Amino acid sequence: MKRSLGVCYYPEHWPEDIWPEDARRMKAAGLTWVRIGEFAWSRLEPEPGQCAFGWLDRAIETLGKAGLRVVLGTPTATPPRWMIDQFPDMLAVDAQGHPRKFGSRRHYCFSHRGYLEACRKIVTELATRYGRHPHVAAWQTDNEYGCHDTVLSYSDAARTAFRDWLAQKYQSAEALNRAWGNVFWSMDYRSLDEIDLPNLTVTEPNPAHVMDFRRFASDQVVAFNRAQVDILRRHTHAPIAHNYMGRITEFDHFKLGADLDISSWDSYPIGFLSDRLEASAEHKAAYLRQGDPDFQAFHHDLYRAVGRGRWWVMEQQPGPVNWAPFNPSPLPGMVRLWTWEAFAHGAEAVCYFRWRQAPFGQEQMHAGLLRPDSAPAPGLAEAAQVAQEAAQMPEAGCCAGDVAVIFDYESAWAWETQPQGADFNYFRLVFAWYRALRSLGLNIDILPPDTQDLSRWKLVLAPGLATVSPALMTAISDCPGTVLLGPRTNSKTVDFAIPEGLPPGLPGLDARIARVESLPPGVNVPLEGGGAFVHWAEEIEGTAPVLLGRCDGSAALVGDDRCAYLGGWPDDATLRTILQTLCAQREIEVFDLPEGVRKRDASGLRFWFNHRAQPVQWNGFEIPAAGVFWHGLD
Amino acid sequence: MKRSLGVCYYPEHWPEDIWPEDARRMKAAGLTWVRIGEFAWSRLEPEPGQCAFGWLDRAIETLGKAGLRVVLGTPTATPPRWMIDQFPDMLAVDAQGHPRKFGSRRHYCFSHRGYLEACRKIVTELATRYGRHPHVAAWQTDNEYGCHDTVLSYSDAARTAFRDWLAQKYQSAEALNRAWGNVFWSMDYRSLDEIDLPNLTVTEPNPAHVMDFRRFASDQVVAFNRAQVDILRRHTHAPIAHNYMGRITEFDHFKLGADLDISSWDSYPIGFLSDRLEASAEHKAAYLRQGDPDFQAFHHDLYRAVGRGRWWVMEQQPGPVNWAPFNPSPLPGMVRLWTWEAFAHGAEAVCYFRWRQAPFGQEQMHAGLLRPDSAPAPGLAEAAQVAQEAAQMPEAGCCAGDVAVIFDYESAWAWETQPQGADFNYFRLVFAWYRALRSLGLNIDILPPDTQDLSRWKLVLAPGLATVSPALMTAISDCPGTVLLGPRTNSKTVDFAIPEGLPPGLPGLDARIARVESLPPGVNVPLEGGGAFVHWAEEIEGTAPVLLGRCDGSAALVGDDRCAYLGGWPDDATLRTILQTLCAQREIEVFDLPEGVRKRDASGLRFWFNHRAQPVQWNGFEIPAAGVFWHGLD
Amino acid sequence: MKRSLGVCYYPEHWPEDIWPEDARRMKAAGLTWVRIGEFAWSRLEPEPGQCAFGWLDRAIETLGKAGLRVVLGTPTATPPRWMIDQFPDMLAVDAQGHPRKFGSRRHYCFSHRGYLEACRKIVTELATRYGRHPHVAAWQTDNEYGCHDTVLSYSDAARTAFRDWLAQKYQSAEALNRAWGNVFWSMDYRSLDEIDLPNLTVTEPNPAHVMDFRRFASDQVVAFNRAQVDILRRHTHAPIAHNYMGRITEFDHFKLGADLDISSWDSYPIGFLSDRLEASAEHKAAYLRQGDPDFQAFHHDLYRAVGRGRWWVMEQQPGPVNWAPFNPSPLPGMVRLWTWEAFAHGAEAVCYFRWRQAPFGQEQMHAGLLRPDSAPAPGLAEAAQVAQEAAQMPEAGCCAGDVAVIFDYESAWAWETQPQGADFNYFRLVFAWYRALRSLGLNIDILPPDTQDLSRWKLVLAPGLATVSPALMTAISDCPGTVLLGPRTNSKTVDFAIPEGLPPGLPGLDARIARVESLPPGVNVPLEGGGAFVHWAEEIEGTAPVLLGRCDGSAALVGDDRCAYLGGWPDDATLRTILQTLCAQREIEVFDLPEGVRKRDASGLRFWFNHRAQPVQWNGFEIPAAGVFWHGLD
Repeated sequence: MKRSLGVCYYPEHWPEDIWPEDARRMKAAGLTWVRIGEFAWSRLEPEPGQCAFGWLDRAIETLGKAGLRVVLGTPTATPPRWMIDQFPDMLAVDAQGHPRKFGSRRHYCFSHRGYLEACRKIVTELATRYGRHPHVAAWQTDNEYGCHDTVLSYSDAARTAFRDWLAQKYQSAEALNRAWGNVFWSMDYRSLDEIDLPNLTVTEPNPAHVMDFRRFASDQVVAFNRAQVDILRRHTHAPIAHNYMGRITEFDHFKLGADLDISSWDSYPIGFLSDRLEASAEHKAAYLRQGDPDFQAFHHDLYRAVGRGRWWVMEQQPGPVNWAPFNPSPLPGMVRLWTWEAFAHGAEAVCYFRWRQAPFGQEQMHAGLLRPDSAPAPGLAEAAQVAQEAAQMPEAGCCAGDVAVIFDYESAWAWETQPQGADFNYFRLVFAWYRALRSLGLNIDILPPDTQDLSRWKLVLAPGLATVSPALMTAISDCPGTVLLGPRTNSKTVDFAIPEGLPPGLPGLDARIARVESLPPGVNVPLEGGGAFVHWAEEIEGTAPVLLGRCDGSAALVGDDRCAYLGGWPDDATLRTILQTLCAQREIEVFDLPEGVRKRDASGLRFWFNHRAQPVQWNGFEIPAAGVFWHGLD
Repeated sequence: MKRSLGVCYYPEHWPEDIWPEDARRMKAAGLTWVRIGEFAWSRLEPEPGQCAFGWLDRAIETLGKAGLRVVLGTPTATPPRWMIDQFPDMLAVDAQGHPRKFGSRRHYCFSHRGYLEACRKIVTELATRYGRHPHVAAWQTDNEYGCHDTVLSYSDAARTAFRDWLAQKYQSAEALNRAWGNVFWSMDYRSLDEIDLPNLTVTEPNPAHVMDFRRFASDQVVAFNRAQVDILRRHTHAPIAHNYMGRITEFDHFKLGADLDISSWDSYPIGFLSDRLEASAEHKAAYLRQGDPDFQAFHHDLYRAVGRGRWWVMEQQPGPVNWAPFNPSPLPGMVRLWTWEAFAHGAEAVCYFRWRQAPFGQEQMHAGLLRPDSAPAPGLAEAAQVAQEAAQMPEAGCCAGDVAVIFDYESAWAWETQPQGADFNYFRLVFAWYRALRSLGLNIDILPPDTQDLSRWKLVLAPGLATVSPALMTAISDCPGTVLLGPRTNSKTVDFAIPEGLPPGLPGLDARIARVESLPPGVNVPLEGGGAFVHWAEEIEGTAPVLLGRCDGSAALVGDDRCAYLGGWPDDATLRTILQTLCAQREIEVFDLPEGVRKRDASGLRFWFNHRAQPVQWNGFEIPAAGVFWHGLD
Repeated sequence: MKRSLGVCYYPEHWPEDIWPEDARRMKAAGLTWVRIGEFAWSRLEPEPGQCAFGWLDRAIETLGKAGLRVVLGTPTATPPRWMIDQFPDMLAVDAQGHPRKFGSRRHYCFSHRGYLEACRKIVTELATRYGRHPHVAAWQTDNEYGCHDTVLSYSDAARTAFRDWLAQKYQSAEALNRAWGNVFWSMDYRSLDEIDLPNLTVTEPNPAHVMDFRRFASDQVVAFNRAQVDILRRHTHAPIAHNYMGRITEFDHFKLGADLDISSWDSYPIGFLSDRLEASAEHKAAYLRQGDPDFQAFHHDLYRAVGRGRWWVMEQQPGPVNWAPFNPSPLPGMVRLWTWEAFAHGAEAVCYFRWRQAPFGQEQMHAGLLRPDSAPAPGLAEAAQVAQEAAQMPEAGCCAGDVAVIFDYESAWAWETQPQGADFNYFRLVFAWYRALRSLGLNIDILPPDTQDLSRWKLVLAPGLATVSPALMTAISDCPGTVLLGPRTNSKTVDFAIPEGLPPGLPGLDARIARVESLPPGVNVPLEGGGAFVHWAEEIEGTAPVLLGRCDGSAALVGDDRCAYLGGWPDDATLRTILQTLCAQREIEVFDLPEGVRKRDASGLRFWFNHRAQPVQWNGFEIPAAGVFWHGLD
């Protein structure tokens, strides 16, 4: 399959007479895909039950005739105002108990049955009408599930649904009391209908209560999406996607993605740097107009896993955005770099958001490929350049990773529920490990926590995995390569309790975590040979061989070349050294990449990306500032 | 008119038998005015409909007989507790949906019709009784509109009134949908009665929605005040004032001031430094006991414009206050300095708040001219000194400004609605420009945004003006002097959309803002010749001559000696240099004032103010620490 | 009485068959006491009115037969879920108006009459059944009153009760209006039933209103506790205790403690360092795994006063906890050090919290003496060592203090109500004085504010005492030693007004506070001889002799060797110097202790504690790191 480009477009925002010219210019820029419709419900159904598809028919026709392929979105992220009259209680409720009102987007609770039914109706209408349409080549469900903190709702509908979910899981209050340990603080329930949502309690609620609520909330998103997919499948053979957001961990993307054909995500490197990354002020200043060098790649690899190999960037930042605390312009070249980076990580398509900057509404300061006056914005030329370059390239494809990292959404919930140290965060932990690997020039695969076969990788990492499933435990046992786990691995049972016998309980590794401590900023636990644990340190006991010691004489890293356990959160340099050592043992080639330079192999090519604002000399060639260089793999 | 002094007094707080002695001491200190009554509703109408004016009659008589002139306040900022029983829904509601309860002050929603009617009644009572009273020489409406964040209310009354306001403005939902761009995110309304207040939305509401709500809220304050003025006018010929607060921008003071005779404001330099000023810790430490050297002057000039020339300081800080995070004492001399600074900027009167420090209630730690034990506080002697000095001075009067700065309340709302960068603030922007001008020793006039004739000034500045009205556009065209605009000038239409053809759309200036970026702290865009843009930078395109370039080759400042546009937020030194250059071109005399020294010309005198804690040698004379020096203008 | 050790135990958490072995191991470790029952309501009364005491009978029997003495807790801190159905309005309401829901603990409002009655019933059941039980040797009421900010509730029940309380105190609205100064801002009430709770007002409520609410809230806690004590007294002769928390000042512990036999508190040195102490980052890093060297001692001395000499540590931190922002492990030795420090300050018993770490529930990351797998945690051996050491020691007893410090809960409320400077805090102030004394090696007694006889002490300190009662004023007059007061002493009347004649109004001291100022961080008022006032400075007038001057010529410290007044908040070194000078005048022996070393004399022994992570040479002997050294007093 050729790598292709696309764009997000809102025909309903513009006079119909400029659609043909817009379509022509898209095509001329080398774009293939055009995503439409996902926020248009008020124009598709202006009055309850009275649909108005004429304009959408004409838009699709115009775009299709210009040679573009349409991705059609279901409009369920923005129900019209009249829906609130039908279902006043459909709004999500925040943790403080306030209904989250109409007037922006995502104003619905995933648990509201009436709204779910309304979604089924509009999706059925769309699927019936466009399911076999020759120009509609893909579908998108809803938009950015979880954005704006919308997974967790404390509404009446959510409470009712949570009780049902608990009833399914536990069957009785007695079983639930046992599982949750409700004898603690007299939290016993006599009936499941006594259970409330875990907000506004006097002090922290039972973590087992919170974890089940988190699982429930994730399941509600999956079920909401599945309802749409089930309808679409009855009417179309086109692939179905959803556009995930960056660093949204409130629902299990692997579970939701299992119902879809394509995984896609919305990549805003500069916004994310400002808004969603723990990093020093120096790092943020150095990459202000480029975004973090690893943040996008991490999501590319993650969502490739979520899509079981098939994935897109559905929205690619094309210039300054409007929603981060500060919104600088990308360096010239970054739009091209971001696009090629996505392709190097195996993206089938990259679509820019959006075609023309809207002069009105919430995102009027969000750049498009066109300016509001229809003149080309800087991103357009870079997109067109990629289109030309891609046309010359071999077919898309993705090389197998050298190493694998397991990512587990439940662990993210677990450590939010019980951080134990104020700055302990699962995403941050896994991302630090990912960054260390990538700074060594490795191709990385991200794996779901229920992976049953680890034999493809020489090195598998699973930091912070709260609970190791029996299946994964078997896979670890059977893995011929090295599996590195910890900290906090397997330290919770499925009921969010400390396991009998203490963690990590790994086969063939006589090691128990006797005690843990969290560390405030500025304090660390020094390791032999320099370096230190930060944030988190564990006391390991047992007879497992010590691979690295702490200066106080305890063990920091124990195990052997099959299975090792790291009892803390190393500083970045130490982590890199540890991983480099493991790679050397397994004869995995690593690279000592310069600051800001990253590498990725794909379909016979080796790509080098320079995220810095200065050109870099490397391996005898120069990578331009904010640029990319590639060559054939020997 | 002679410059005069006054004081705020609460006869209801003190035994009646000490009133005569208080009055005598006021007069002996050289005070002319005494403001009373503005918080006394519970004593004027102890039971609904049963007024008790006897004590006020006697208080006015006592004060008047001592030779003082009374400013009588309407008591509508503090309705009595029984009013809440009559109108339980009269309380304002905060953005989180909580009614703002009785128990302090300003506990009312401007949109509540019942409360408005109650205000009309009490004002009618007062106006009827005291409108022609020989000792009542001026009136004040309410107290500090907008203080404690009271302009914006999310009550049911506000929602109803907002819908009415929208109906007046748009006539139909269709027109409103078009104006607001509600096609974006399916925000279309079918009826104006579907529109809610823009709080508690899932993510940010439509900025056009917010802007109309801000305009509405401002209009409600204006209408509330006008209702009182209309009544007073029917019964009195005395001038009517309101006492504005510092850095309150939530309502349009120009519009409200148009109904009044005198503008006045409440000047608390040390509290404002701590509480309402963006400045470095060093700056705040250097002026800890003086207040910022420009903050008061800015408001003097602003409120002179609001009062169309007639203005007072109604409350002048006389010592430490109680309401800032930290409340240090003023340096000896500052009470005199503040007073003379007000006079130099054209104040007719300066009244100290308050006569005697109250030993009870919320402000018991707020200094007065007297201590709670009736001994003189340090401020009293300084006030008396000013009274003696003023008696020797020529009549009050105000020299015309050398330069003008346009201040626009709607722009303040616009950039709060859409800062685009977290630290972009309109007041801060205009104040930085004002400070740069004043540090050059210039006399500054502040102008409203609907000024129709700019021909009086050689230099007119309008930073950050969101929308340029047709009238102002004409005035700019016709202005014989230099008009300097930008950044963000005219970047929004009246419907809060990006204008067609892109901003700034200035006559005779071929310049368009192709792209903007906001910059986090610590990052800047370097300019040629040193200096940089901070906070904000714009990419200018067009053929307008480049007056100053960026180091990256783009234009920073374009235009000619009639109209220029600055595409960013310069650092303070650069801004000063730019303005110095423009002054030189227009042959406006500037001064290279030492740190902390400021100058103002008025009625044939030149005043030099030294806000520093050390004496300063300047121009051959010494200005004492925290002191003022004046001489005749040659 | 021998010093004894104990532990907190939750038989309901564990299978009944391991109770005997647990009891055996407790006894083997040298423990005497076992506290049980305080969170077990849902297991004691699983259905309303149906009690199930069998398991508790057996648990007490098992523990008692092993030779342990039981402290039985009333379970009223954790009412079962069914109680909420009986009294849906029994939940406390937070300052934002949200009910604080079931799902953790302390989910009740002290003012709810229905819940109070339910508490009386369960306490009666327990008292009847176990009041004369041979193994039940002490009682504990409820658990940690005030923890999780639970003293102040804004519920309907609280409002009703507050009005009753006000009616008792003032009898009429007129009297209340006068006392509160409600003429200010028209806050007059016509009836006491018009009075609301002082939350959600537009700006700050009347401080007199807040102070009465604080007094009321404290009284409600005292009354709630007394209701239980009254019942217990009818059925048992065993001593009754409550376990207070650290730095909880929301209720008057002296008043509550007057109803009890023993005062006890829950000592978590490492959690408190992280969570409840103003200190520099360096200080917090230096004592990260030890806790602050004075924080525990302060509470030991405070609660010894609250218990009128009889006091325990009811919960002693045995390892890392779960509830602070960061939770590091104690240094080896600290559990022993903490225990001996408590004994040196006169504790009768120290009980560790808890026996075995629970693998479930909110506190599953809170260490116990046993790990979750029943292996000994590090704390167990240290506890056992103390048990052995204590067995060799003379009987417990407490030497009289060299100096006294007055601590007053009402002053804590006063300065929270009116800090005047954002960082002014009463506890912080008193603790700074305490720390300075203790760093001089002094034995300190803490006294309640109604102490009538100060003749036992050569030096008595009372910083920040808001109101000096007539009784204390007499005691000060009669005190043969030196009494040092200020800042802010006696600056409020009982009605929270500034007293006539200005503070401090001390007998024989002609000094008045003419003006006060609060100072932001980084700013100070220099004193003669070096040093400075920080946070707070006062202008003193009068003829009292000046003992220390400010560099600006005003007085800093005035008085004589009987009564002195300090007009500011000195930096730590200056405070130490001032106190050292006073001690020298009174011939009180002081010690120039090394950093982190502290001393306490008790029952003929002198204890030296080294809180540092390094050993210290001192007086010819070495105190180990995190260690204690003792010798006989000569």
